[in-house]
Amino acid sequence: MRVYDLILKKRNGFAFNKAEIEFLIEGYVKGDIPDYQISALLMAIYFCGMNEEETLNLTRAMINSGDTIDLKAIPGIKVDKHSTGGVGDTTTIVLAPLVAAAGAPVAKLSGRGLGHTGGTLDKLESIPGFKTEMAVAELVEAVKKIGVAVAGQTGNLVPADKLLYALRDVTATVDSMPLIAGSIMSKKLASGADALVLDVKAGDGAFLKDRAAAFNLSKMMVSIGNGAGCKTVALVTNMDQPLGFAVGNALEVKEAIQTLRGEGPPDLKELCLFLGGWMLALAGKCAHPDQGMDLLEKTISGGAALEKFKELVRSQHGNDAVTEDLSLLPQSGKQVAVAAPAAGYVKKLEAEAIGLAAMMLGAGRETKDSTIDPAVGIVITKKIGDSVQAGENLAVIHAGATAPADQLDAVRNMIINAYSFQDDPVEKEKLVLGQVE
Amino acid sequence: MRVYDLILKKRNGFAFNKAEIEFLIEGYVKGDIPDYQISALLMAIYFCGMNEEETLNLTRAMINSGDTIDLKAIPGIKVDKHSTGGVGDTTTIVLAPLVAAAGAPVAKLSGRGLGHTGGTLDKLESIPGFKTEMAVAELVEAVKKIGVAVAGQTGNLVPADKLLYALRDVTATVDSMPLIAGSIMSKKLASGADALVLDVKAGDGAFLKDRAAAFNLSKMMVSIGNGAGCKTVALVTNMDQPLGFAVGNALEVKEAIQTLRGEGPPDLKELCLFLGGWMLALAGKCAHPDQGMDLLEKTISGGAALEKFKELVRSQHGNDAVTEDLSLLPQSGKQVAVAAPAAGYVKKLEAEAIGLAAMMLGAGRETKDSTIDPAVGIVITKKIGDSVQAGENLAVIHAGATAPADQLDAVRNMIINAYSFQDDPVEKEKLVLGQVE
Repeated sequence: MRVYDLILKKRNGFAFNKAEIEFLIEGYVKGDIPDYQISALLMAIYFCGMNEEETLNLTRAMINSGDTIDLKAIPGIKVDKHSTGGVGDTTTIVLAPLVAAAGAPVAKLSGRGLGHTGGTLDKLESIPGFKTEMAVAELVEAVKKIGVAVAGQTGNLVPADKLLYALRDVTATVDSMPLIAGSIMSKKLASGADALVLDVKAGDGAFLKDRAAAFNLSKMMVSIGNGAGCKTVALVTNMDQPLGFAVGNALEVKEAIQTLRGEGPPDLKELCLFLGGWMLALAGKCAHPDQGMDLLEKTISGGAALEKFKELVRSQHGNDAVTEDLSLLPQSGKQVAVAAPAAGYVKKLEAEAIGLAAMMLGAGRETKDSTIDPAVGIVITKKIGDSVQAGENLAVIHAGATAPADQLDAVRNMIINAYSFQDDPVEKEKLVLGQVE
Repeated sequence: MRVYDLILKKRNGFAFNKAEIEFLIEGYVKGDIPDYQISALLMAIYFCGMNEEETLNLTRAMINSGDTIDLKAIPGIKVDKHSTGGVGDTTTIVLAPLVAAAGAPVAKLSGRGLGHTGGTLDKLESIPGFKTEMAVAELVEAVKKIGVAVAGQTGNLVPADKLLYALRDVTATVDSMPLIAGSIMSKKLASGADALVLDVKAGDGAFLKDRAAAFNLSKMMVSIGNGAGCKTVALVTNMDQPLGFAVGNALEVKEAIQTLRGEGPPDLKELCLFLGGWMLALAGKCAHPDQGMDLLEKTISGGAALEKFKELVRSQHGNDAVTEDLSLLPQSGKQVAVAAPAAGYVKKLEAEAIGLAAMMLGAGRETKDSTIDPAVGIVITKKIGDSVQAGENLAVIHAGATAPADQLDAVRNMIINAYSFQDDPVEKEKLVLGQVE
């Protein structure tokens, strides 16, 4: 087998068989195949795509390039959840204890990553004392004991993805659907769950702006998951405006705690119930996700969800008093209200602009070496469909105590520009746009 | 300017401006841009193409990456000729002295290259004593003195092409029209001619099998040449069967000498008159190529063409007695006739198969390090449209004295399989399929 012939084959629109994909991935990870051949191949894949079978074989070959996590020691069906990423997405921090409280074990591996805010790990670490570094054995023990753990990735999972992603990142081949699907699914499947619920975000604040593309990616990932023996469901959800009100690390933890108390933003709660209902259904805890949603409602209203979150915080060495006293979370040094320039109904609230404004405040990482300020961010007051009077608060900026005035002005302008208004009432769009089973 | 953004731009179907192309070519030649980014870009160009202006700017940037040859010291309009390569293509050896004898100076730089036979240099070197290594000053002096020289490339011409070609060769991005056009034209334009006649071959024995593709490439190259101020014309010519009768180095020189004597194969002569007529027209030696063709006919019949060839051979230290005594050329050790398996009219004679058979005998280079046997090759007896009796000679194999029987059998079978016959007479196709000015 020659790499040249395989590049030619893909360039001419043909599909790879299993052995060809294994040859390419193994050869690249070993260093036998140079970057310049793989980057040409990636561009050919960008243009010619990969069919279902190829994408599954790619994912399998990527998984086989490194370690995998074995969760068999945890009794029951382990359901994982993954979001393709949006602005203000705090669902994992709500879902992990919520679903665990409803009886399904959750062994969640999360990341940090670049973005408008930190990843789930960064958010959780804004809780004083909270530790996310755990060996696999510790993770398994924690889940066996209290039903839930949220940890950073450990071991050499999917080295092929690290190599391929680094190359895609510098060769304009990141946004290829089969490569995205293979990258996400290889990492999830290597993490050892038995079932998986995917939250595929579509809209202005997601990397997929287009809904058809989000459904397309969902189908690919569901096909890979099921093909690899991991029962997978995807919900395509709206990311045209930030999820919930808070965008920032400690601010989002606060919102997650409020949601577990039954006092959170309606959209964040709605999405958590949808995703969690499916998680319970896949875990065999109910016959249908609707029943799972009812069960989760009761888990919140009865206090079990918040109680499980406290257990999780204690289990990972955090101060669980934050759940009673939110002021124990890092507090921003300066709060500045952003007033509406005119009256009307909120027609648009561009999620990406709000995310960038939060990053400018220090809530997210622009590069791998950026430091995150856990306290800063933005709390939205008015969302799409809300009516606003001129001068009324649209949002509150949470900035560092020493934030310069020109930075605050820039952030205020970004927030105001993210809003569009109209005189007539606005019909709200659905949050869950569809599902792929 | 960032390479990433330029890859993305091309991938998304946009055109580069001059500064962007210069940035890419200069950066790559300097080693500032890594192979893996350029190979992804090349694949994006394969899929998205380049427009006329981009291709001209690419060619110019490639020329500017190295030395160029200055032929200004030679009086008159210097016309060059280039063939995209076929089987049995001996035109340069006929054309250079023929056109020079008709009054237009020819300073021809030729190559060796890989292929079914050697390049023009290898063929000429089968003449005892003939030297093709010349410095630019020697080349200029020779042309000033006798009107013609044929030499190997000298100096650091178009290093960008060497680098890009090596990368294209291992990333399945060779057959991209704008990249082919840029590669050919940058080398021709760097060689200093004032005008250029291109012989773009289409058919089974050419790298472009498809005629529409050959016209497309011709248009690109003519547009580049004229855009760069070098008056350029392309003839698209038929390469469905070998040109002339001989395929092999000394065998083709013999055929070239016969053509200069007025005794060569009709198709080789026809093509030389067409190409040469255009060369004379572009050199200002006649108003129209048809007049140039008449002039060339007279140059052959009056003996001036052969005389100029003798001068060329003497000028480059060869034994010019070969023109009178063809047996002074290297002679093959063994000749084997190939008999027709049945009677009929020759319908097809696959040029590529004949070329591969000649290469198997040792007439061409399979790899850079292969040695060429100047004496071996194949002389075709029957071409498309000819009638054949069963047992009559189709071709004669010229092999080395020690060629093993199984090799000769294999070559014989390849030749027989290259032929197709039919009962009814065959209408011959035109040799010159069209021209692009």
